[in-house]
Amino acid sequence: MARKIHSRGNHMLSLLRRILIGHPLATDRIEHEKLGKAGGMAIFAADPMSSVAYGPEEVLLVLLVAGAAGMRLNVLVCVAIAVLIGIVATSYRQTVIEYPSGGGAYVVARENLGPLASHIAGAALLIDYVLTVAVSVAAGIAAITSAVPALYHHRVLIAGICVALIALGNLRGLRESAAAFALPVYGFVVCAVITILAGLWQLARGSMTPDAPLTALPVLQPLTMFLVLRAFSSGCVSLTGIEAVANGVQAFREPRGRNAAAVMVYLAVILAATVVGVAILAHQLNVVPRETETVLSQVGAKVFGRHAMYYVLQTLTALILIFAANTSFSGFPRLSAFMARDGFLPRQMANLGDRLVFSNGILTLAALAIALIVAFQGDVTRLIPLYAVGVFTAFTASQAGMVLHWKRQGGRNWRAKALLNGFGAFCTGVVLIVVAVTKFVYGAWIVCILIPLVVLAFQAIARHYRYVASRLSLERAGEVRRRRNLNLLLVGGMHRGTLEALEYVRALGGPVRAIHIEAEGETEPRIQRLWDAYEKEMPLIIIPSPYRNLAVPLAEYIRQVRSQEHYDTVTVVLPEFIVDTWWESLLHNHSALWLQFQLRSEPGVAVVNMRYRL
Amino acid sequence: MARKIHSRGNHMLSLLRRILIGHPLATDRIEHEKLGKAGGMAIFAADPMSSVAYGPEEVLLVLLVAGAAGMRLNVLVCVAIAVLIGIVATSYRQTVIEYPSGGGAYVVARENLGPLASHIAGAALLIDYVLTVAVSVAAGIAAITSAVPALYHHRVLIAGICVALIALGNLRGLRESAAAFALPVYGFVVCAVITILAGLWQLARGSMTPDAPLTALPVLQPLTMFLVLRAFSSGCVSLTGIEAVANGVQAFREPRGRNAAAVMVYLAVILAATVVGVAILAHQLNVVPRETETVLSQVGAKVFGRHAMYYVLQTLTALILIFAANTSFSGFPRLSAFMARDGFLPRQMANLGDRLVFSNGILTLAALAIALIVAFQGDVTRLIPLYAVGVFTAFTASQAGMVLHWKRQGGRNWRAKALLNGFGAFCTGVVLIVVAVTKFVYGAWIVCILIPLVVLAFQAIARHYRYVASRLSLERAGEVRRRRNLNLLLVGGMHRGTLEALEYVRALGGPVRAIHIEAEGETEPRIQRLWDAYEKEMPLIIIPSPYRNLAVPLAEYIRQVRSQEHYDTVTVVLPEFIVDTWWESLLHNHSALWLQFQLRSEPGVAVVNMRYRL
Repeated sequence: MARKIHSRGNHMLSLLRRILIGHPLATDRIEHEKLGKAGGMAIFAADPMSSVAYGPEEVLLVLLVAGAAGMRLNVLVCVAIAVLIGIVATSYRQTVIEYPSGGGAYVVARENLGPLASHIAGAALLIDYVLTVAVSVAAGIAAITSAVPALYHHRVLIAGICVALIALGNLRGLRESAAAFALPVYGFVVCAVITILAGLWQLARGSMTPDAPLTALPVLQPLTMFLVLRAFSSGCVSLTGIEAVANGVQAFREPRGRNAAAVMVYLAVILAATVVGVAILAHQLNVVPRETETVLSQVGAKVFGRHAMYYVLQTLTALILIFAANTSFSGFPRLSAFMARDGFLPRQMANLGDRLVFSNGILTLAALAIALIVAFQGDVTRLIPLYAVGVFTAFTASQAGMVLHWKRQGGRNWRAKALLNGFGAFCTGVVLIVVAVTKFVYGAWIVCILIPLVVLAFQAIARHYRYVASRLSLERAGEVRRRRNLNLLLVGGMHRGTLEALEYVRALGGPVRAIHIEAEGETEPRIQRLWDAYEKEMPLIIIPSPYRNLAVPLAEYIRQVRSQEHYDTVTVVLPEFIVDTWWESLLHNHSALWLQFQLRSEPGVAVVNMRYRL
Repeated sequence: MARKIHSRGNHMLSLLRRILIGHPLATDRIEHEKLGKAGGMAIFAADPMSSVAYGPEEVLLVLLVAGAAGMRLNVLVCVAIAVLIGIVATSYRQTVIEYPSGGGAYVVARENLGPLASHIAGAALLIDYVLTVAVSVAAGIAAITSAVPALYHHRVLIAGICVALIALGNLRGLRESAAAFALPVYGFVVCAVITILAGLWQLARGSMTPDAPLTALPVLQPLTMFLVLRAFSSGCVSLTGIEAVANGVQAFREPRGRNAAAVMVYLAVILAATVVGVAILAHQLNVVPRETETVLSQVGAKVFGRHAMYYVLQTLTALILIFAANTSFSGFPRLSAFMARDGFLPRQMANLGDRLVFSNGILTLAALAIALIVAFQGDVTRLIPLYAVGVFTAFTASQAGMVLHWKRQGGRNWRAKALLNGFGAFCTGVVLIVVAVTKFVYGAWIVCILIPLVVLAFQAIARHYRYVASRLSLERAGEVRRRRNLNLLLVGGMHRGTLEALEYVRALGGPVRAIHIEAEGETEPRIQRLWDAYEKEMPLIIIPSPYRNLAVPLAEYIRQVRSQEHYDTVTVVLPEFIVDTWWESLLHNHSALWLQFQLRSEPGVAVVNMRYRL
């Protein structure tokens, strides 16, 4: 199909677009790659597994302020997190089986808890998608700068470029291909497991020397219950990503629910084991978190020495983190398109781009994530307190919704199922409160303010669309009546283009007038004589403009005509000629464009751009 | 007069504009305050006199590299500059008397030497106006930071804000009022004279101790003729501003020429005396230029001590420099408007703004000057080598033009007058070569490249306007013929607005069709049934768009209609509704605007924006 519209400007833009985004795809080519268990594991493990790279470290960072006594509780806190992972996964298994067409928190809440709960869940999820990108990329860059410290000072720039590249890939319609995810995800899982096993083996044999004992650590704060809970809250970021499986059930092969549920279980087991494993190693090796090197990097360096295997671990860590960010780039646009179709977000979010992806969602996510990275200077530890509030809000809403779902639906064992989801909702609800309270002053307040604001925005948007729909409703159509229109040709000067425009406006049919706005302050404008020489039938109306403005006297005249001569509309024809290059167009006043802008909300005025070539 | 166009967006913009720029002025209020000798002196002295603040210093800075032997030549070089000031002023006196309606180099060259010379003079002058702003403001800020060193690190920002404020004042129509200029100009002249006399008096009485003798200065370069000439070239910046009197003869009271000539002579005498005076003091006091304190500031501090009088001198120096920059803000826009009317610069440069000033010239000058200040980090010494090439080019062109003028005109004593201007042209020509050669590697090369480029741009612009004029010439008007037009209503969806648009397009008269671009991939679009229910006479044409683009299939259809059904033009009516606030407008697709942009260079298409209110 010929797609070319003849214009150099358009051509340049469209060429740039082709190079960056690729050729457009036809609508009927939309399709899904269907996943089995292994493929599903590859795609959905990236987000949760990647948190192993920073979760245990954040726990340690909190406990560090209580000195050696705090550090000793590290393993205990990580075990608690592993138990929570088990509870959430068990509870979510039921959701996945019950909502085979996608059981994200927004959908489950909307169907079972009503609009407000679904808005809260939606807002929480959207915020968390942005945070996932920011945290994952920042942590991925931290894995790289741990191995190559020289890059540390450029981390914000590198992270920004990284987000932009992921966004570009997604704009091109990079699909979540199981093949592409398999290497980094399975690679990282295998590598993490090897690290843990090799580490434990070496510890058992005594062939590895731990760092100096931690007794020398300064005690900055006493070891309170609050501090332990805060450490637990920080570690809870490891649970983000479990939600992704529920959102993406549609992507699985039949039986969708069963396949997804199986992946959920495998995932929970590996994730819990890895978190605890890293915690034990860090504890035994007396690793202390440092600003410029991650805990995982320190553990890896101890186990393997700074040789090939260490660099493999760091590379895979960076890769899985960046793939985790990529997961959000399918989740955020899909959810925002979904909410846009429901009328809670701008319609543009539901537009399919050239490559059949929701381009506006991708661009919005990238812009927000980059803003966040810049604002927090790419510092994972400063971003973490904002994280997890959103995901636990979504967990709680989703599991609570499931309880009502079972109650309404009934069926075999519904009470047991409702009890299980109820227990999940209770646990995640308690954790939500713990997370919000313990991290509040460290940044969670931002999210606690943001979620209600976003919900209010959803509602304002929905109100606006309802208002527009009611105003445009065809039920009011009886009022439409015949109209009278006057065509008004705006004459700037007497030249060939003016004569062509005059022929055009006559060809339109209907009454025509020609008007000239005299802005030069001449009392007997030269144009009058020229006009009279060429045009015998129609007079030229000349209106003085003492303030040299075109729009004001024109609008004045139009209002007068409409009220005195009872025209419903006045169609203003603005002739403008086209030049060949951008620099030539700088040499002309563009008064037509400017006039059109100024007249844009004058009632009863339609503006015609009549462009002619030289 | 009621100026309001009803629109919140317009209203906000226009309010901002009123606050910043003030209310618009009617064209017939354009007028000139006419100047006598005292007033003329106040206005035209700011630019040349201000160079006392940096001219002698730049001479010293060059001589410094030759150590004590170089520094001793300071007074001699400044005397040579004083002599040159005398020659140029004497020569220019004749121009001023002969061109009472303004004898700028551009005009004199255009009338006597032809277009190329006038372009060169125009380019040179425009470049020098920009440099005057950059150098004057940078030197003014240097006077402030000499007294308050803490501000030194913010000099680029302060200078930028300063240029922006001067530009804003000029956009408001700040006229060169003799009253406003009198204080800083006369104040600075009096203060400079007092400083010199008091300094000489104290030296004669031996009541002031000079700095340590200069014998300890390191000799970085031998004292060559080239170095002395380069010092002389640096000092020649003091001659910029003499041209301003010739440009502004029109502003004087009758007898214009005589008044302007008298001012020229006074000015030359005071300027020459002050330059030499400062040079003698600096020499006797063994002042050495420093990066963070100006020579004038050091001299002032020695003569008065760092007390009240010293701060008065610094304040007046800063003021006169900023007023000098302001002079360029009337010269540059006036010259560029003049050249725009001649067709050598974009027409917009000749547009009178709300306050009867050439707003685009003011904005262009401010942008270029700020760019220059940023690029050279507000460093006067780095800017100086670029300066003076332009003004000596203009001097030479102007004086050479005068020689031909006398020859052509004849009259009493024409040979003597021609000889005088010829001598002026010769001297300034020689200095031009000296300046260009000695400062070439230090930055003058930029101007030497820039002047030809600007001249080429003038010629390209003139060529373009001639081409447009020839294409638009009414002599070709015989070819215009009757046209056939088809009105095409683009239907997005079936709602009340569509029905209104349908009535509108029918009221236009002439043949009408309705078209819908189907981008959703539906095979039996719902819109067809809705349309058929409401509109019985006209069918709805449905065109599929597999790539979800609106413009491409629409353009395709239009081309087909034009070629097969012999329509000359197709008028596309794009209905679009108006919402009340900017945030609501974000919630809509603006496909009309986007379509209009994409169709903008499709031949034979006129686009109507039919905006309706909800």
